[in-house]
Amino acid sequence: MQWVVNEVGRKIPREVGGRRLIPYRGPFVTPPQSERKYGPKLYHISRPGQQKVLHSIEEAIRRVGLKDGMTISFHHHFRNGDRVMNMVLETIERMGYKNITIAPSSLFPCQEEVLLRCLSKGVVTHIEGGGLRGKIGRYVSHGNLKEPVRIRSHGGRVRAIEAGELHIDVAFIGAPTADEMGNLTGLYGPSACGPLSYSVADAMYADRVIAITDNLVPFPLDRFSISMEYVDYVVVVDKIGNPEDIVFGSLKITSSPTRLKIAKDAVQLAYEAGYVKEGFTFQAGAGGISLAFVNFLAELMREKGIRARWANGGTTSYLVDLLREGLVDYLSTGQAFDLTAIDSMRVDKNHLEISIGYYANPHNKGTLVNLLDLAVLGATEVDVNFNVNTVTYSSGFLAEPIGGHSDVAAGSKFTILTVPLIRGRFPTVVDEVTTVVTPGETVDAVVTERGIAINPRREDVLEALEGTSLPIKEIEELRREAYRITGGKKKPPWGEKIVALVEYRDGTILDVVKEVKV
Amino acid sequence: MQWVVNEVGRKIPREVGGRRLIPYRGPFVTPPQSERKYGPKLYHISRPGQQKVLHSIEEAIRRVGLKDGMTISFHHHFRNGDRVMNMVLETIERMGYKNITIAPSSLFPCQEEVLLRCLSKGVVTHIEGGGLRGKIGRYVSHGNLKEPVRIRSHGGRVRAIEAGELHIDVAFIGAPTADEMGNLTGLYGPSACGPLSYSVADAMYADRVIAITDNLVPFPLDRFSISMEYVDYVVVVDKIGNPEDIVFGSLKITSSPTRLKIAKDAVQLAYEAGYVKEGFTFQAGAGGISLAFVNFLAELMREKGIRARWANGGTTSYLVDLLREGLVDYLSTGQAFDLTAIDSMRVDKNHLEISIGYYANPHNKGTLVNLLDLAVLGATEVDVNFNVNTVTYSSGFLAEPIGGHSDVAAGSKFTILTVPLIRGRFPTVVDEVTTVVTPGETVDAVVTERGIAINPRREDVLEALEGTSLPIKEIEELRREAYRITGGKKKPPWGEKIVALVEYRDGTILDVVKEVKV
Repeated sequence: MQWVVNEVGRKIPREVGGRRLIPYRGPFVTPPQSERKYGPKLYHISRPGQQKVLHSIEEAIRRVGLKDGMTISFHHHFRNGDRVMNMVLETIERMGYKNITIAPSSLFPCQEEVLLRCLSKGVVTHIEGGGLRGKIGRYVSHGNLKEPVRIRSHGGRVRAIEAGELHIDVAFIGAPTADEMGNLTGLYGPSACGPLSYSVADAMYADRVIAITDNLVPFPLDRFSISMEYVDYVVVVDKIGNPEDIVFGSLKITSSPTRLKIAKDAVQLAYEAGYVKEGFTFQAGAGGISLAFVNFLAELMREKGIRARWANGGTTSYLVDLLREGLVDYLSTGQAFDLTAIDSMRVDKNHLEISIGYYANPHNKGTLVNLLDLAVLGATEVDVNFNVNTVTYSSGFLAEPIGGHSDVAAGSKFTILTVPLIRGRFPTVVDEVTTVVTPGETVDAVVTERGIAINPRREDVLEALEGTSLPIKEIEELRREAYRITGGKKKPPWGEKIVALVEYRDGTILDVVKEVKV
Repeated sequence: MQWVVNEVGRKIPREVGGRRLIPYRGPFVTPPQSERKYGPKLYHISRPGQQKVLHSIEEAIRRVGLKDGMTISFHHHFRNGDRVMNMVLETIERMGYKNITIAPSSLFPCQEEVLLRCLSKGVVTHIEGGGLRGKIGRYVSHGNLKEPVRIRSHGGRVRAIEAGELHIDVAFIGAPTADEMGNLTGLYGPSACGPLSYSVADAMYADRVIAITDNLVPFPLDRFSISMEYVDYVVVVDKIGNPEDIVFGSLKITSSPTRLKIAKDAVQLAYEAGYVKEGFTFQAGAGGISLAFVNFLAELMREKGIRARWANGGTTSYLVDLLREGLVDYLSTGQAFDLTAIDSMRVDKNHLEISIGYYANPHNKGTLVNLLDLAVLGATEVDVNFNVNTVTYSSGFLAEPIGGHSDVAAGSKFTILTVPLIRGRFPTVVDEVTTVVTPGETVDAVVTERGIAINPRREDVLEALEGTSLPIKEIEELRREAYRITGGKKKPPWGEKIVALVEYRDGTILDVVKEVKV
């Protein structure tokens, strides 16, 4: 195997499985590799009297002509309450399909049991895309798949679909409300999940599209996220998801004094650096620190009389509160993290649903992430070059999703990483991250409970912070402290086999993840 | 030249200008000729700090790299109040461009002066698409263009764009409101024109897109018809259109007793034939008879206690009244014909803006026209085979647009043509229409002041009408009467040169229009 070292210093093979890999060269350097967007299949002939409504997934699968070896896709708006992917996998398992590739926008524990069984039986043999949590992460990390998984950011996934690099034969779209012609929305219905943003690209570019709903309404649906122009069939089932399980992971403000301090310092940093000012824009994730950040930020805004022009979700009740209080003019949401967010999308006029392409596709003519002033993101590790890992643990296992991390970091004017210096007995600030997911060039500051490091590229920020009380340190100093407490970072127990490729949002390769030998 | 006779009996050349022509075979017979949709150019790289706002059309044209021989497109939502096309043509004229093809969704008299000058100077040398009214119609009919114009229906235009048959290099979109990133809407602003439906396909498939606005607002526009994902530049000018001139042509209920009788009989016919019943759907155009039809239909609905599920525009205040009265549950609009319609789109929750693809693209997975129960359409001529002409006069000149005529006729369960038997000294019901625009197979009834003819294919309708008081006649009888009064129809004074090809919505060729030798 021939290797080449990329711009973040990682060794990348020249090709994998006969497909040439392009090493990462910088956040805005590599142009699209194809000249044109993928041209999806043209529909045959649209006739009056067309009947799209079916009553079994099996019949829909038969009608669209699913074949062994094809790629099927799913959205993750239901997060840990999704029932659609399990229903579809169980159906194709029963129908005897083999060698199916799944291309979900993310995966959750609720899907582990069925998916692992399908993997073990050869029903599913490949996974395209991110969100390799828990047991699925371990399964992949143990080298059980023949081909490496391509880990893509949210924006990168849309880019890959649009460029034809991720070809979807059949997209399955869980739709909380559908009319008989296949106009779809996630805002209404007993299983309302909020936006259908992840499925917009799937609907537009998949050859065939099957909507699955538990709330069929008469045509016309007056407010839809996906148009009937793209939907082949609408399957009606009893229940597509459990909205109460959309709340998944750390969706509460941290109560840890350490983490509260990090959040508070991050707000102070953003303010002193000049990014919290009248009309600013921001995105903060849904982790405990990020939520605390939002609260402290709101306090500061009230105190200083500052309003934000807009904030972008993953949206929680914390952001909705800011909107309703008038601290934020507009809220945009590509993913709802709780039921308050979903309700707000229905009732608050200045709460916008946006597609993931609109949010972050780097080869669009304009994306929301590029308009962010301020972003607050988490990580599993960050290194002295500010490179960030969100997908593997120091153990070497794939365990967390990438989300929109690299998209937001690339777009935002000021990107703050908030991390506790150590997690258990592992250092978070390290010499070299296990896996590079977001290039250091796009990260401006690292805030820990033991100090704040500013990326030396940001001389302007360092200058702005002179004379403030913020505990600014060299990142190397933070690393030393983390190593002193924990004893340092060990190399992950990796073998030779490549189990995943981390694709940067522009399609270049940032890093490889190898098989864990345990 | 080799010729072949198509399904409506018209002689079609096997090819024109080296491009093979497919003769029309039936309304739902010919599948797409390409397997895939056109893949438009991928954008280079989307960067933070991107500035889309420009202050001159000239600069935008220079930046997108317009070249001699390219195709540029326009929408016609401003109808006779459009200023955008003239501004753009004057700019490219001044910049010295040659051999430009224009692909407007329609043309209006307000554009004649500038367009004819550009045509005479070779700035513009070809026109793709419909709406060849007045002086432009005459110019084309006199054989002044080198290549024949392709006359397409609204749905056919979207199909052709999507299939890559109508390639647009640069789309110009007059946008009554735009934010700095190029999110566009026609609903708001001093020059509000209603929907931007005709431009949706142009935006999605053109290589480059220039929005022109007189109302720039800060990002984010919370309700947009076209996303920033597709827009390269936003040019700010003083005024893009005169909304008061959107009202163009016969937008008043006819006062002619003859035409009122036609409208009244058409309502009675629709009712007796069983198409006016609880939950039905309909579309009626904007001519004087159609508007009277809507009023008489409303009277009938009130009297019988019938509600329609939805009606589709071109929307006028008459339809808005029905919506507000609750006679119609939903109104969908791809084109606003007056200011009341525009206002209603802003304030009435159950008034939907729909794209023209959603409305009528025959190669979509679903279109609105296919869900119509009832349609009322006009014509310049109809013949004894129920074939309809909307584009030429008996004089042989191109003079009127095609609009969505053939789309609606193909989709609607019951299509009524309402025409006075004669117009001036010309018969309207004829042996053979000058030009076939809508195949007789898709037309169910012709209503004139001297009687109603039912397409003999519709035995079910003839049966349903037995015993009613409606003046049902053979269409041949209507033809004879029209000829008796007028002295008959003369052949148009046509030479040999083909000046236009009438393309059916599926891309096949229905008819040819030849040069007028006068």
